[in-house]
Formats: sequence, structure tokens, C-alpha cells
Amino acid sequence: MDGYYAWMLMATAMVLFMTVPALALFYGGMTRARSVLNMMMMSYAAVAVVGLVYVLWGWSMAFGSKDVGGFFASPFELFGLDGVEGGDYIYVAFQMTFAIITAALISGAIADRVKFSAWLVFLPLWVTFSYFPIAHMVWTDTGFIHEHFPAQDYAGGTVVHINAGLAGGILALIIGKRIGWPREQMRPHNLPLTMMGAALLWFGWYGFNVGSIVFPDDASDADKTAQFMTETGITFMNTTVATMAAILAWLLVEKLLHGKATSLGAASGIVAGLVAITPAAGAVSIVGAIAIGAISGALCAWAVGLKFKWGLDDSLDVVGVHLVGGLVGTLLIGFLSTSSAPGGIDGLFYGGGFDSLIDQTMAVVIAVVWTGVFTTLIALGIARTIGWRVEDEDEVTNGIDFAEHGESAYDIAGSSGTIL
Amino acid sequence: MDGYYAWMLMATAMVLFMTVPALALFYGGMTRARSVLNMMMMSYAAVAVVGLVYVLWGWSMAFGSKDVGGFFASPFELFGLDGVEGGDYIYVAFQMTFAIITAALISGAIADRVKFSAWLVFLPLWVTFSYFPIAHMVWTDTGFIHEHFPAQDYAGGTVVHINAGLAGGILALIIGKRIGWPREQMRPHNLPLTMMGAALLWFGWYGFNVGSIVFPDDASDADKTAQFMTETGITFMNTTVATMAAILAWLLVEKLLHGKATSLGAASGIVAGLVAITPAAGAVSIVGAIAIGAISGALCAWAVGLKFKWGLDDSLDVVGVHLVGGLVGTLLIGFLSTSSAPGGIDGLFYGGGFDSLIDQTMAVVIAVVWTGVFTTLIALGIARTIGWRVEDEDEVTNGIDFAEHGESAYDIAGSSGTIL
Amino acid sequence: MDGYYAWMLMATAMVLFMTVPALALFYGGMTRARSVLNMMMMSYAAVAVVGLVYVLWGWSMAFGSKDVGGFFASPFELFGLDGVEGGDYIYVAFQMTFAIITAALISGAIADRVKFSAWLVFLPLWVTFSYFPIAHMVWTDTGFIHEHFPAQDYAGGTVVHINAGLAGGILALIIGKRIGWPREQMRPHNLPLTMMGAALLWFGWYGFNVGSIVFPDDASDADKTAQFMTETGITFMNTTVATMAAILAWLLVEKLLHGKATSLGAASGIVAGLVAITPAAGAVSIVGAIAIGAISGALCAWAVGLKFKWGLDDSLDVVGVHLVGGLVGTLLIGFLSTSSAPGGIDGLFYGGGFDSLIDQTMAVVIAVVWTGVFTTLIALGIARTIGWRVEDEDEVTNGIDFAEHGESAYDIAGSSGTIL
Repeated sequence: MDGYYAWMLMATAMVLFMTVPALALFYGGMTRARSVLNMMMMSYAAVAVVGLVYVLWGWSMAFGSKDVGGFFASPFELFGLDGVEGGDYIYVAFQMTFAIITAALISGAIADRVKFSAWLVFLPLWVTFSYFPIAHMVWTDTGFIHEHFPAQDYAGGTVVHINAGLAGGILALIIGKRIGWPREQMRPHNLPLTMMGAALLWFGWYGFNVGSIVFPDDASDADKTAQFMTETGITFMNTTVATMAAILAWLLVEKLLHGKATSLGAASGIVAGLVAITPAAGAVSIVGAIAIGAISGALCAWAVGLKFKWGLDDSLDVVGVHLVGGLVGTLLIGFLSTSSAPGGIDGLFYGGGFDSLIDQTMAVVIAVVWTGVFTTLIALGIARTIGWRVEDEDEVTNGIDFAEHGESAYDIAGSSGTIL
Repeated sequence: MDGYYAWMLMATAMVLFMTVPALALFYGGMTRARSVLNMMMMSYAAVAVVGLVYVLWGWSMAFGSKDVGGFFASPFELFGLDGVEGGDYIYVAFQMTFAIITAALISGAIADRVKFSAWLVFLPLWVTFSYFPIAHMVWTDTGFIHEHFPAQDYAGGTVVHINAGLAGGILALIIGKRIGWPREQMRPHNLPLTMMGAALLWFGWYGFNVGSIVFPDDASDADKTAQFMTETGITFMNTTVATMAAILAWLLVEKLLHGKATSLGAASGIVAGLVAITPAAGAVSIVGAIAIGAISGALCAWAVGLKFKWGLDDSLDVVGVHLVGGLVGTLLIGFLSTSSAPGGIDGLFYGGGFDSLIDQTMAVVIAVVWTGVFTTLIALGIARTIGWRVEDEDEVTNGIDFAEHGESAYDIAGSSGTIL
Repeated sequence: MDGYYAWMLMATAMVLFMTVPALALFYGGMTRARSVLNMMMMSYAAVAVVGLVYVLWGWSMAFGSKDVGGFFASPFELFGLDGVEGGDYIYVAFQMTFAIITAALISGAIADRVKFSAWLVFLPLWVTFSYFPIAHMVWTDTGFIHEHFPAQDYAGGTVVHINAGLAGGILALIIGKRIGWPREQMRPHNLPLTMMGAALLWFGWYGFNVGSIVFPDDASDADKTAQFMTETGITFMNTTVATMAAILAWLLVEKLLHGKATSLGAASGIVAGLVAITPAAGAVSIVGAIAIGAISGALCAWAVGLKFKWGLDDSLDVVGVHLVGGLVGTLLIGFLSTSSAPGGIDGLFYGGGFDSLIDQTMAVVIAVVWTGVFTTLIALGIARTIGWRVEDEDEVTNGIDFAEHGESAYDIAGSSGTIL
């Protein structure tokens, strides 16, 4: 069991690593050069704010025993981790890192135009009203979704990706477009940063998926060790092959639609594959994982073009990758789930009938309605009080890095003397 | 036990990772564009030189059994790791990475103006006369500080941060300011690098703090495993929440003092929190960890402004972050230490009286005096023989990267043809 | 045993990390600014293509039981991992990451001039005809090299580095020089990226070398745990000190030959040391490891200059570092191997006679002939069908990033408004 424990130490550090620096770099490279610091700061702030909120009342609301209607648990029971044993802190920390990255993911939808103070207010409200309840509903024995529609969500297809993806879309809608978008090209300013960020996300994602193993309540230590030494190999491999298939699928669709396979496509394909396999890592065979990755890569590559049609400035494709990829993975479990995988349920293609597909679909519907309602309320509340947006002049002329943080990201030419 | 062993393999790789690339990027981003390679090279050189010295006589001096007056151990006993068992190599390697990063930290105080050759001479002298003795005094049973003032220093508040922080200050004083400082702005040339470096440091710091668990001499394997599976959860969580609190505290102080919360502040806050929790990771509760992080973040944010008042060109704030943060963490243990934490001693606020505070204070005093004397002697010795500084012309006109290494960091515009 | 298993999860993630982002950054920083995305894409594509091929028929060809003449195993036996147990997936994934990085290494020899489509065709052919057979020959009981010349190759001196290094040289020869080389300076465009990449490679290399422990067939779980807790300490330490020695040796040779110790030299020295210790990590003592590192660092520092003499545009020194470093490590085992190390054989300097040196030499000869023949055939095949090179105009004027991927890496000045 101490091998499993050692893995959880590592996995927890890896999931924190996914937000800073990985997501911060992935998103930061995609913004314009004068917005990169603000974009990165949205991830760094999410770490600090959501992390402390999680210790205060988040763990209690998500995984406490005082259930309230199946929707969440009392925030007071384990407030400040009171009553949590030292040895369990690592499981708290692991779950904390999930809440952090889910909130941070949203920031990509609203790049370059939001006041840092508004983001700091949004973070604790959103995790309290949207993330902690959905985690409770999906991942605990008394949770509403788990009890009524026992959907499989290995590491967070509904809880993390559909939740963040939809929230990002709603925020982009309520906050509105960047001035000049889409008339002006707003190209990534540093694609090597974005490619690096995608690879760092992939590395950290092994902590995310492979660390999400859960043992039966009555398992002995020997049982747990045996399960650890089988199941994690499968979830590791499924995570790997799905991502590889998604890269190739994204590049192929790009090539067909636009004539070129881009580095931004490869980076996005990595994320699309990882998102889709997240709920399914323990549910499918290797063939199933490849299929999920390929379908997600292809569909997301197509979906990221829709924002131009719809006029929705989801700046860094949070909807197109996390909502779409999360839906792909969560729903395909209904078809591809197999009893030979750790999840143990046969989906439609394995003769299990529609049960799994119905559960997966209902989990999606409930999660979408819940986060839809609460994200909208919070976003409108902020819009009508402190307001979301920076001054137009700051957005257009000064740039948000200078306006909000008093800094500019790069000073390369200015100080390089005669050499550069 | 093999779970613990697996963790130590990982932790050791993570602490090496803290120096290269993490610290090299954190510091490198903060220099001017024409000094970044030299700044990074100071870390890379520290890895190579200190690492080999550690294997030759460092391990023997710090952790050998032939004690000399409680100050250090014979460098000859385990010279070249002779007599060390294969299975113990990982503990040697783990400790080696601590010596490496301590030396590398100092380089931030003397950016942009020091001959690479002088740095190569300084490294082995400084670890031999300052680091190995202080590690021996604090961390071994026969060590002077440990025996007379059994201070708690979980992962290196005195040994690493006060030691490096003070040494950096002394070097900055003896070597002198950069030409033009502080009249000329010497702004960070690449803040995304610095933010990335801070996050990579955080990741590696889990190896640093959580890997620093020590077992009682008479513990059985089962005892050790049980301790591993409790204590590391606590030290992991304390490391995490202290850092989060420090980020917010730094940004708040910045906002109050200067009107903006900066990305450099977030990156520095991460390090300030990690530094302060380093000695205290096993000594305090979660509330104590949050307090230590917040106080360190706030105090360091204020302290980094002092160098302008004092005219001390501690270029990248080694004194303001490592000395101040190290003092905060080491001394607050005297107040916040609790017997419910693995350290097992009650401090002033937990009814334990002044004993702990006195021990912590005396450890600081002894470490400060020791490194103060030896760092000064070494720095003056180099100043009066080979000399520390590059030619003025190289510092002002050519830039140190070109002068010392014949390179420039970036060649972006020059080779980009018609595209960029 | 679950501690070992936890380590293998981590080690596998670390070796994947070596290709993306580590190698992609190391190589990407060394290209010109308008070729960095294409260079990085060659690594990302290697991950996706080689990874899926490995799952389909690679594992079966390399490690299947249906041996064909000692040269490879049937690709059909375990096609798609059919018949592989869930708990063994992690060993498959670990080996998969080795095939990936070996193929990706080659790309450095042919930077800035190759069609992305040609690379996508080359990848599956090369691993099928060169990598899988050599892995089979060296690392399996029925392998030709293993049976006839039981050479030591702990983690891939012949299989990975000599194989990739020679293949890179052959490709550079057949594909030809970049237009303008060597008349035009083609300097690294972003050395901090390269330095970062080297350090990330080092981090990942602990997974590569330390994860390569193999247990005897008849070992009990207790035996395996004991071996794990001894051997990995040795391989970890050997990997560390060899790299440190190589950095210093490279910088010294540079200083002597060209007057300056460069950051590119430090980064290259890291890789040269790691390459050379790869086959020898379990074969030598610490002194032996330092010797191998120092010799490799010095020889490679000298060898990378030869390409200018020979007119071979091995753009990023794949031959000079991987072929030369791989030869150094593999052949020095014949001299420095010691029975006190896990490998258990005494080499020439330890009184073991010429046996080991002969085996090591023959392993090199066979690997060189095998990959020489098949790489040449594949390279010529591609040259005479779809062709390797992009249009001259794209290479010279537009840049390969724009021509092949429709992108440019950086857009820093363009969008920075009035601030930068």
C-alpha cells in the first residue's frame, strides 16, 4: 500500500503542475504578447484562491458525510480540515488540485478583457456553487447523480471538463467579445510556449487520470495493492493511446479543412484527447480508447471553428475542446464501456444495452443544467455589481498586462545593447 | 518501505529539477536579455561543480561519523563515497541536490557582473566552508546546533535559505552594484520564464520538503512505513497552503504599496511561501502553515524594497526572499510549533513556553555568524586574487553573455525572413 | 513490489516527457526562429505515430515470444496488445516511450528542410525495420546479439543512441545540406529554450535509466524488492555524476578550443553525459561513471566540429552527441565494467580480460550494420518516391514553419501596441 501512497504524493504534485505552469503556458502562449501575464495570472490566482477555499469548506462540501439532498454536503462539518487525519491529507490535496484546474480552465474563454479583481471574486463563488456540488453529486455514494444515474466518470468528464467548458461558454457570452474580434486577427504570440504547455499538461494528466483509482470500501490492503498494480496500467495506457490518436485526428481534419497541419492543432489535439479519455480511462479497452481519442480529436478540430459562425468569442477554445471533448468521452462510455475494463459495465457495443448510455446522458444533463444555472447567476451578479471588463482604452491601446499588472511580458530588444 | 524508497527516487530527481531548469529560469527571466545565459549558467555550473564535490568530500563532511567539534565531520572518511552501500546512494544523492540548490540560490544576488571563472572558484570553497558544516551542525546527532539548541529545521530554513540569503547579501556588498544601478531600470526581460520557473520550483519543492522525512534510529520497517504514510500527507499539505497564502499576501501588499498586483509578485510570493514553510513543514498545523505563508509573503513583499534604500544591489532579491523568508519560517516555529504535528514540540502559542523559540533563535544566530564569517573570507579572498567582476565595457556595452560565453540568448528578428 | 510499480508509472511518464516537451525544446531552441515549430512538430509527430505503431505491432516485434532468427519476433502474436495482461501494460508503455524518443532523436540531423509528410512516412518504417529488431536482438533472451555476444546495454546505448545517431547521419547525407550551409551562420534562435530542454531531458532520463532495472526470471517478490532498493540507487547516482563530469569536460574543451565556455556547450554536455552513461548505468562504479561522463563530454565537444570538415549538415549534432556518446559508453563498459556493480561482469581494467570488450564491440558492429542498411534503404526509398525536401523557395525565403504548417512561432512585436 505504501507504493500506492507514494504514487498519490506524486500524482498530486502532478495535477497541481497541470495548472501552474502547464495550463498557464498553454493559454499564455495563445494570447497576444501584451496579455500573456494577465492570462497566466488567472491560473496562478486560481491556485491560491481555490486552494485555500478548498481547505476551508470545499472538501467538506464535496466529500463530507453530512449530505444535503444529494446535492452537496455541509461546508461546516470538516471546515478547515478539522477532523481529517494526517494520512488522509494527501487525498484532500489530490482533490483540491482538481477543483483548482477546473476553475482555471474557464479563464481561456475570457482572455484579454476581464478585470483581475472580477476574476478573484468569481473564483470562490463558482467553485462553491458549481464545482463542489457537481463533484459531490457524481463522486460520492450519497450524490444525486451517483445514486439515480450511476454514471461512470473516472477522473472528471462531467465534474471537470463539461463543467468548465460550459461555464467558459456562458462567461464568454455574458462578458462579450474582445473589441475588434473577429475582424482583427488575434494570433497566438508564442506557439512554442503553447506546445510546451500542452506537453506539460499531458505529463501532469497521468497524475490526474491514473491517480483517480478508487478502491471498494471493503477492500483489504492486499486487495488494494493488487488492484493498484492492474488498474493503473490500464488507465495509463488508455490515457496514452487516446491522446496519440487525437493528435493525428486533429491534424488530419485540419489538413482536410484548411490545407495545413499546424502546431496549434497538435497542441490542441493533445488536450482534446486527454479531455475525452478522462471520464473513460477505466471504462474502455485500448481499441475503445483509440476510438474515443480519434473521435474527440476530429470533432474538436471541427468544433473550434463554430465560434466564428456563432460570434462567440471563446478566445482560447474552452467550449470547443473541454465541453465538446468532455461530452465525447462521457457519452461514448455508453457505447464503448466494457466489463473487461476496471469499470466493469458493458456498454451498447458490448451487449450491455442502453443502461449505461442513459446514465451517462442523464449525468451530462444534470451537470449541464446545474452549472448552467449557477454560472449564469454568478456571472450576471458580477456584471451588475463590480463589472467584468477593463476600460476599453486599456483593452485596445494599453494592453491588459500594463493596465492590470503594471508590467509587460518581454523586454528583449530594449536592453540588448549592440548584440541583438 | 519500497514505496518510501520509490518516493525518494522521485524526490531526488525533483530537487535537482529545482536548480535546473527551475531556478535557472526563475532567475534568468528576471535579468536583462543580454545576461540571461550567464545567469542560467551559474545554476548549471553549480550543479556540476557542487555535485562532484559532494560525492568527493561533501557527504563525508556533512554526514560522516568522524565528528570534529560538532562543526563538521572528516572529509576523508567517506571520500568518493567509499564505504557507502548501494542502497544508500539515493540518500546521498538527495542530500547532494540540497547543497547544489543552496549554492545556486546565491547567484541571484550578483547577477550580470561576475566573471564565470570567479563563480567556478567560489562554488567549491563556499559549500566546503559554509554549507557542509551548517548541514552537519543542524542535521546530525553530533552537530553543535542540534546538540546544544535542538532547533527544528525540517528541510533547510537555516541550512539552505538563511545560509544562501545571507551569503548572497554579503557577496552583493563586497562585489558592488551593477554599473548604473539603481538609476537605470533593469527590468526583467522575460516574465513568462520567471513565472514558469516559480511554478517549476513549487513542483520540485514537494521533493524538497516531503522527501525530508527522517525516521527514528530504532524504527522498524513497519514503523517507517506507517510514519511515511502519515507525516508526508501533513508536510505536503502544509507546503501547499503556506504557498497559496503567501501568493495572496504578496499581491495584497503590492496592491496596497504600489497600486498593482504583479506577475513578478505572484512568482516571488510562491518562493517566499515555500522558503518560510521549509523549516516548518513538519512542525505546524494547517492554520500555522497558512499563517507562516501569509506573514512571509507580506514581509518579503515589503523587504524587497529595502535594497533601494540601502543601496545594496541584491539584484534578484535573494536577501529579501531567502534570508527574510528563512528567518520568518525558522523563528515562527518557536511560536506555532505544535505537538500534534510530526515535530512534536509545543511552541509559545501552544503552551510550550520559550524553549522552542530560544532554540530556533540560537540556531539562526549560530548559522548567521558561521556563514557570515566564512562567506566574507571567501568573497574577499577572491576579490583580492582573481577578482570578481567582468570588465566595465563588457558589463555596460557588450553584455555579459557575449563577453563571458560568446553568445546571445535570442536571435528572433534576425533570422525570421519575411514572416515575422 | 508496489513501490517498484509506482516508480514504473512515474518513470514511464518521465520518458514520454523526454520527447515532449524536453527534446522538442532542446532541438527547437537550436533551430532558426522560422523553423522552430516544424522542429518541435517532428517530436510531437513521433510520439503519436510511433506510439500507436508500438501498440499495434511494435511490442510484439520487440518482445513477443515468436522469435524469427533472433532478429525480431512476429508482429502478429501480440498485435494490438492482444493477450497482454492489464498489470503488464505499464511495461509496454515504458518500452513504447523508448521507441518514441529514439525515432524523435533522429530529427535533429535533418532540421529545417524536410517535408512533414516525408517524416510521417519515415517514422513507422524506421521503427519497424530498425528499432524493433535491434531492441529484440539486444534485450531479449532469444535475441541474436544477446545470445551470441551478451553485451551489457542497461538502457539503450546501442538500441537507442548508436541507432538514432547513425540513422541521423545517414539521413543528413542522403537528404543533403540546408541551402547556404555552412556559409551562412545558422545560429540557435533561443538558447534559454535549449538549456531548459537539456535540463528537462536530464530529469526524464532518471526514468529512462533508473526505470530500466530488470529482474531475474526466477526472482521472488522479496528478491525483486531488495534488488530494486539497491540497484536503483546505484544507477541513479551513476547517471548523476556522469552528467556532471560531462558538463565540465565539454566546457573545458570548448574553452581550450574556442576560448569560451558556452551555454550551448553546457546543454550539449548534459546530453553527452547522459547518452554515454545510458548503457553503463548498471555496469560501473562511481569512479567509472565519472570517467565515462568526462570522456564522453570531451570527445563529443570535439566531435561536433567534424561536420564542418566533412561537409555533413548534421544540423543539431545528432551524430556528434548520440553516435559518439553512445559509442563511448558502450565500448568503455569493456574496460570499466565491474562485478561490484549490478551488471556483475569485470571488464579489462578490473581483471576480467577482453571478453566484455569483445561482446560490447560486436554488439556495436551488428547494430551499426543493421541500422546502416535499413536506414539507407528507407531513406533512399523515400527520396525516390515522395521526396524528402521542401521547395527551395520555402526553405530559403518563406521558412519551413510557414510553408509546412502555415504558422510563425512568435508574434511579439506585432501585437504589443505601445508598450513593448
